[in-house]
Amino acid sequence: MSGTESPVLAVLCGDKHPPDMEPIEQVAAVRYTDADGLADALRDADALFVYDFLSTAVPGAWHAANRLRWLHIASAGVDPVMFPALRESDVVLTNSRGVFDNSIAEYVLGQILAFAKDFARSIKLQRERTWRHRESERIEGRSVLVVGTGPIGRSIARLLRAVGMHVAGAGRTARDGDPDFGTVHASARLNEHLPEFDYVVAVAPLTEQTKGMFDAAAFAAMKPGARFVNVGRGELVVTGDLVEALRAERIAGAALDVFDTEPLPPDNPLWTMENVHISPHMSGDFVGWRNALVEVFADNFRRWRAGQPLVNVVDKGLGYVPSGG
Amino acid sequence: MSGTESPVLAVLCGDKHPPDMEPIEQVAAVRYTDADGLADALRDADALFVYDFLSTAVPGAWHAANRLRWLHIASAGVDPVMFPALRESDVVLTNSRGVFDNSIAEYVLGQILAFAKDFARSIKLQRERTWRHRESERIEGRSVLVVGTGPIGRSIARLLRAVGMHVAGAGRTARDGDPDFGTVHASARLNEHLPEFDYVVAVAPLTEQTKGMFDAAAFAAMKPGARFVNVGRGELVVTGDLVEALRAERIAGAALDVFDTEPLPPDNPLWTMENVHISPHMSGDFVGWRNALVEVFADNFRRWRAGQPLVNVVDKGLGYVPSGG
Repeated sequence: MSGTESPVLAVLCGDKHPPDMEPIEQVAAVRYTDADGLADALRDADALFVYDFLSTAVPGAWHAANRLRWLHIASAGVDPVMFPALRESDVVLTNSRGVFDNSIAEYVLGQILAFAKDFARSIKLQRERTWRHRESERIEGRSVLVVGTGPIGRSIARLLRAVGMHVAGAGRTARDGDPDFGTVHASARLNEHLPEFDYVVAVAPLTEQTKGMFDAAAFAAMKPGARFVNVGRGELVVTGDLVEALRAERIAGAALDVFDTEPLPPDNPLWTMENVHISPHMSGDFVGWRNALVEVFADNFRRWRAGQPLVNVVDKGLGYVPSGG
Repeated sequence: MSGTESPVLAVLCGDKHPPDMEPIEQVAAVRYTDADGLADALRDADALFVYDFLSTAVPGAWHAANRLRWLHIASAGVDPVMFPALRESDVVLTNSRGVFDNSIAEYVLGQILAFAKDFARSIKLQRERTWRHRESERIEGRSVLVVGTGPIGRSIARLLRAVGMHVAGAGRTARDGDPDFGTVHASARLNEHLPEFDYVVAVAPLTEQTKGMFDAAAFAAMKPGARFVNVGRGELVVTGDLVEALRAERIAGAALDVFDTEPLPPDNPLWTMENVHISPHMSGDFVGWRNALVEVFADNFRRWRAGQPLVNVVDKGLGYVPSGG
């Protein structure tokens, strides 16, 4: 676009507008909208900032996007906007890769330590004012498979290596000598490798290839004492199969930050299972994350205004930002 | 002693004998005893292995120790056997320094992550089947003061540095350029330095100098948002002052693995306080710890039989094994 005219920017948000937008408001006509007003806001808009990244409203309003050229989403996963009409369009899609990496890595390390040191039981015993000594596990020397080799998976791998765990990755292409993972196994042959690991961390993007990859066969392949951590997407897992594997003590525990239905419905059996740690899709959301998300958008907005290449451009065929891209 | 005669070894234990003692039983007359039989077992004994390291029975039976030359305790802290008659005797005292270091470091890191990621509240909300998103804290870049610069403190410092925290130490002598801590502040001026730190970890040995060092003045000096972690000894803390500081929200939380009375009595207010994580003196006790403790003793026993210098010799004036000693 030319740098002289004032572009129209639609911002999909709830009641709460994104912070720190003043610099952008000075150079663009900004239309803040909720889901109901999205179609109106998209008409003649040049760009769309999906700040409410859990919204599923974009496909239904897409028909009104008559001159959109850029869509930025305030999340790492782009699955909510990977509908056919966007895929097939010329609209450039960018995401917020990088913002959540280290925060999610800390969350994963925390959950691994919570399992190893039996924190949930300590809290339960504290509630009962009961002093009961137990032996706990070391994490040094234990093995972890990180399924997903994007930047979040890499940050997890680096942190877990730093505390002495043995880490491998699983991704599209098997390889050795990866700087963060060492060995990367092929996700297509995941179940052959699962028996080797004490912990399995799911952080793959949600695509047609990864949907439901953690099913009964995968949980059956894991070590009986294995713990499963999901910080990717709920739909990577066949939830019923996970519940069954936990009930049968086929695996020893699960820490889940994401679910196929969010919020997790009150009648879901996961809520009340022993050895399940539930958190409400918050692993990446450190204090200041909303400002950081707007900063990533604002940086790309400056590039877009200046006609420079955008960062974090999603490969709409793959469903994520390719490594090195 | 001569290597030809068979020494008499008293072992203070409860109902459960230490594991892996067969090699020692082949070369020594081993007398396993509980507290009631300790005086009888000590008569004519050459060495005492205090396997039940929480026992307070040794001072009361000490009068019978007519030819004891060596006392080994299966713990890092030697305060249960630091009574005047032992101090003044020629009996060599050794401890189990090293066994618990890395396990306790992992526990401390886990507690710090539990605070930062609000795990206790997640567990509470899970019990109520309530989905409530919160923002969480990063640990990278946060500051920690480790009070106690022995091997456990050093292991804690190394692990917390590995995950990107800013670490300093507090010990007897102020200094810079320490390989693990960088800066070490003087414990005598602790309260001047406490305001700088997000987390304060107590792991000092219990001595006349350190007893009650965490009192009302210390908690008043800490940051209002600070968290306190005690993996040293309960008596390092004036418990009533800690309770008061937590009640007044003078500090934000405490993770306590040790208490001035153990087991912690059911009516102690700490059990029911928000933001207090209680565990039953287990932070170092990984699966296999009992075997590891006996291994440390058996190694020293071999040295003792061979007339070689013992390792982990406690300076009975200081109350711990001096660094580099």
